[in-house]
Amino acid sequence: MIKKHKVIFQPSGSRGEVEDGKTILEAAQSLGVDIEALCGNKKVCGKCKVRIEEGYFEKDNIESGMAHLSPLSEAEKKHIKPEDGPGIRLSCTAEIHGDVKVFVPERSRAGKQVVRKAAKELTIKLDPAVKKYNVALAKPSLHDMTTGDWERVLTSLEENYGLKGLTFDYLVLKDLQDILRKGEWNATATVWMDKEIIKVEPGFVEASYGLAVDIGTTTCVGYLTDLNTGKVVNTESIMNPQVPYGEDVMSRITYAMSNPGVGLETMQKAIIAGLNEIIERVVLEIKNDGPHPGYVIDDLTIVFNTAMHHIFLGLNPEYIGRSPFIPAVQSSLDIKARDLGLKINPASYIHVLPIEAGFVGADNVGVLIAEEPYNQDEMVLIIDIGTNGELLMGNRTKVCSTSCATGPAFEGAQIKFGMRAAPGAIETVEIDPETKEPRYKVIGKADWHTHIAEVKAKGLCGSGIIGVVAEMFKAGIIDKSGRFVMDLGTPRVRKDADGKPEYVLAWAAETSIGHDITITQGDVRALQLAKGALYAGAKLMMKRLGITKLDRVILAGAFGSHIDKVASMTLGMFPDCPIDMVYAVGNAAGDGSRMALLNRGKRIEANEKARWVEFVEIATDPAFEKEFMQAMHIPHMKDKFPNLKALLEKQKSPVEIKA
Amino acid sequence: MIKKHKVIFQPSGSRGEVEDGKTILEAAQSLGVDIEALCGNKKVCGKCKVRIEEGYFEKDNIESGMAHLSPLSEAEKKHIKPEDGPGIRLSCTAEIHGDVKVFVPERSRAGKQVVRKAAKELTIKLDPAVKKYNVALAKPSLHDMTTGDWERVLTSLEENYGLKGLTFDYLVLKDLQDILRKGEWNATATVWMDKEIIKVEPGFVEASYGLAVDIGTTTCVGYLTDLNTGKVVNTESIMNPQVPYGEDVMSRITYAMSNPGVGLETMQKAIIAGLNEIIERVVLEIKNDGPHPGYVIDDLTIVFNTAMHHIFLGLNPEYIGRSPFIPAVQSSLDIKARDLGLKINPASYIHVLPIEAGFVGADNVGVLIAEEPYNQDEMVLIIDIGTNGELLMGNRTKVCSTSCATGPAFEGAQIKFGMRAAPGAIETVEIDPETKEPRYKVIGKADWHTHIAEVKAKGLCGSGIIGVVAEMFKAGIIDKSGRFVMDLGTPRVRKDADGKPEYVLAWAAETSIGHDITITQGDVRALQLAKGALYAGAKLMMKRLGITKLDRVILAGAFGSHIDKVASMTLGMFPDCPIDMVYAVGNAAGDGSRMALLNRGKRIEANEKARWVEFVEIATDPAFEKEFMQAMHIPHMKDKFPNLKALLEKQKSPVEIKA
Repeated sequence: MIKKHKVIFQPSGSRGEVEDGKTILEAAQSLGVDIEALCGNKKVCGKCKVRIEEGYFEKDNIESGMAHLSPLSEAEKKHIKPEDGPGIRLSCTAEIHGDVKVFVPERSRAGKQVVRKAAKELTIKLDPAVKKYNVALAKPSLHDMTTGDWERVLTSLEENYGLKGLTFDYLVLKDLQDILRKGEWNATATVWMDKEIIKVEPGFVEASYGLAVDIGTTTCVGYLTDLNTGKVVNTESIMNPQVPYGEDVMSRITYAMSNPGVGLETMQKAIIAGLNEIIERVVLEIKNDGPHPGYVIDDLTIVFNTAMHHIFLGLNPEYIGRSPFIPAVQSSLDIKARDLGLKINPASYIHVLPIEAGFVGADNVGVLIAEEPYNQDEMVLIIDIGTNGELLMGNRTKVCSTSCATGPAFEGAQIKFGMRAAPGAIETVEIDPETKEPRYKVIGKADWHTHIAEVKAKGLCGSGIIGVVAEMFKAGIIDKSGRFVMDLGTPRVRKDADGKPEYVLAWAAETSIGHDITITQGDVRALQLAKGALYAGAKLMMKRLGITKLDRVILAGAFGSHIDKVASMTLGMFPDCPIDMVYAVGNAAGDGSRMALLNRGKRIEANEKARWVEFVEIATDPAFEKEFMQAMHIPHMKDKFPNLKALLEKQKSPVEIKA
Repeated sequence: MIKKHKVIFQPSGSRGEVEDGKTILEAAQSLGVDIEALCGNKKVCGKCKVRIEEGYFEKDNIESGMAHLSPLSEAEKKHIKPEDGPGIRLSCTAEIHGDVKVFVPERSRAGKQVVRKAAKELTIKLDPAVKKYNVALAKPSLHDMTTGDWERVLTSLEENYGLKGLTFDYLVLKDLQDILRKGEWNATATVWMDKEIIKVEPGFVEASYGLAVDIGTTTCVGYLTDLNTGKVVNTESIMNPQVPYGEDVMSRITYAMSNPGVGLETMQKAIIAGLNEIIERVVLEIKNDGPHPGYVIDDLTIVFNTAMHHIFLGLNPEYIGRSPFIPAVQSSLDIKARDLGLKINPASYIHVLPIEAGFVGADNVGVLIAEEPYNQDEMVLIIDIGTNGELLMGNRTKVCSTSCATGPAFEGAQIKFGMRAAPGAIETVEIDPETKEPRYKVIGKADWHTHIAEVKAKGLCGSGIIGVVAEMFKAGIIDKSGRFVMDLGTPRVRKDADGKPEYVLAWAAETSIGHDITITQGDVRALQLAKGALYAGAKLMMKRLGITKLDRVILAGAFGSHIDKVASMTLGMFPDCPIDMVYAVGNAAGDGSRMALLNRGKRIEANEKARWVEFVEIATDPAFEKEFMQAMHIPHMKDKFPNLKALLEKQKSPVEIKA
């Protein structure tokens, strides 16, 4: 019998067993983990580096003389450099002889995650915090020798642009003399908030860039923006490099607390390095005479949840993780890029958007200022679905916010064949109510340079999971309570080895993994828990606001624009609403970050509205448990869904819905 | 014949020849250079470390197999650590076998320079830029969970002290949560300029410290000041560690220019390290719970000449060294301590006083705001004597400033037996007009822990040189033109080996160096050049102001308070003036630095007055050469000195002065 070993891949979380002697690359391919291997396993490109997190270095293995991986090959000795750090192996070469945990660095990932946080066009008045001003200076002479270089710049900015009382960043002062002379007394000053000069360049410079950042628990994205046009000129995203320290917010807070003095710093360094990687990549095609590539970026706005906010800033997240959940700071912050080690113009400021409360972060403030419920008469519910779910509800009279512990099911985690929105992920599903036969769509080419003609299914991403469970309900495969209906006369509904029911979405032959892709009873339960939390949260907020119906529902989040709104209403992620009043807006948190980059008034608005919004603590509400239990049903145990009923009748679904 | 080698000691500049095989310590002792040798040459204390600047490491010596010093001994291998840097030797052990240049680090100097920049009492309204505020904060609870820690502090400062719109330094935010909890919601906030919180400490903290700094070309001093009382609680000084790169301003500018990319940085690092040494020593006895000793200091003001200013800030000094002599910046600056690498509270600001023009620096602005000529009716001349001489002249109607290239003669350099104001330096001299026999006073114990019963003469410091030359003139040993009068019937006036006249101030037996201490014709000439430059500068300024006499003369500078005002007027350092209207005020530049530390209004005054003062360029004035030539005479070729005449007649000096 061939020995098998457990292998876990990070940050995707994919895990499985592989036969002894397989390479890490082979294991990765069999588990649907994409690793870049440009040379086709010829051991020459060195692109498939991975870091061994556990197994290889365990003390007991070394002592027992048993290594979990084959010894370092000559090819590895050639390609692996000291600066790669410890534990690095070439995945095409290292053979598995024991259980291992493998981290695939961003650079080694081939099938890059599809950027579902792509930027949409925003309509906003351009009034960025950072502006460039060209000045022609008085040239010094023996008749004009008592005016310093700095004073010449200040005088010219005041005379030509009415900018008074400006200060200089010390770093700008350091190079000022040479720059003015290089430009022959013609220069361009970059001014922050009409207050401080953060850059002086020789001659006339027009191009002006800012970066709007959205740090998610799982995914981080940066939108490089032309501050003269407001257009996004490039977008880059990475997996949050904090994932190895905890997949969700609470486990990262725990990591910080259980590793005092190092845990917080480690995670802060990881996210700063990750953001620097985004910066480096996003400016790749921008012409730059500065000392480093990111130097062209003069402004950066950033949103994240409260825990990511604290960790990013090196603030102890302990107190937001325990009662009474007090954050270190709520207001927006302007911090010098150099104080955070971010490799943009070191004299520029990082604008951190304000947070609302211990559980409702700057990302939700981003959603708030992007969607502006406070400017509307209609009663709106905004659901921001990420690793956590955040809700905003209200209109110009009052807006409430809350946070729901949905868990990461909507992102494909905790789902048997769940995966990120990467090539091979099933993203939409339809099931014939008669035959119970499915049709599905798989995410295809990830990147223009990976020429994949056809992509076979590998798993399901978030939108696929919502879609398939909603379709299973509509087709009568599961009932209102989420239980499987057996004996439907189809081999697709069956029991697994443990006797638990499952639905076969794709037969092994259709997949790239050699297994059937199934939806299990556990998967359905995970989704019910997640959507139940959102629904119960919404119900309690409606109660708080004294309303019984919603005028509008906005779905936001990483996969917000890909979510099927009928599927999500069928599932009961939110109370009934006319379907043409349900909108998917995509990454609204990122939109808020971009708006704060483009319009300084939005920064003031963010601070004001973050204080104005009323935080509703639902977890401690005595009514929560009952609401949650009822909301676990599909779409709900008791509530009426007249709009949904009409819709499903039109679709000829056999399912009955209360109206 | 015994071989001799040339030895130069830095930063004192002492030089001479020593016999082959002598140790560096023996050479130092014979040349009057003090090196700490606590163990009495037993090679065990390791206190006498010196750095070999030239000789030992010269490529040609290594190639020729000839070392200028004995090989590294076992004692040296034991005491010298890698962190000491290259070229370090124990001076008690290393034997000289060739020409060497030796740098004696501050720590290895025994006879510490007498701090002649000691602090006098200032009368000024206490209104420092940095103030501490104690706050009792609302403790968070589940009923009060939407207020962050930062917001609690801000609210309390506004409610209790009316401080509105405060910002936080990012570094303060980082530790805020733990500090508030440590102090059980009682805290003390340190606020800069009622604008920014630069420190939060747990509980009630009263003590508040600032450091007023004066960086001279040769000497640097720091006054640790209690911001609650305004009193100086400790003073520390060091030799400027930039001395090895050039003894005067111009040679340091040249060093920066001739070593592009490294020269400036090297000198900046040296002065920052030096200032950090002052900081470390000056706070030694202050209780401190902070992360490092200097953390107790929350404010720092600094004055220096323009070149020291630029180098300290890492600004290219090239343009102030050549026409049209434009400084990078004139206004005062507030720079975060961490941006400069100064080891005080890293969130605090370094307040750099403004400069007047390319040649008239923040040190002169310090003199200006300390002496306030702009508030006086009387016409005053203020002479600030350092390595350069700076003059201010005027009253409330108008004040002019200029800089005179005096050279370092007043500081004892370029004088055969010149030395710094350290133990063994002759500081005052009287010569009997009849017998030509001198009486002199030697600077004694330097330090309370060096128990020296009697100190023998070793050389002359600045005040001694001015004193002896004035006395030589009054006793008829030199004439008005500075020439020696021979055949006075005393063995003290004689000719040296080269046939040049000299005056023996101390016979070998009275000294610690085993030589006669003499005043040479060259010494007298050096002093005439220096005082002539000052006098000519003052004359041209009087012309510019349209005045013929001065109401008051103020002598400022490192040795300003030790200078004999009669001697300096006798010498003709400045035009005639009633002697009781001549004042020595000591280190007025340092006083200005201290005033800016204690009163924020003085900072505004400094900026305003620095712009208001009229810089007079005297070097390019066509009348300068003639004025300078006439002013070389003692006291002057043509000008009348009625006040001096009356004075000398009273003293029964045989010298005739025009009245």
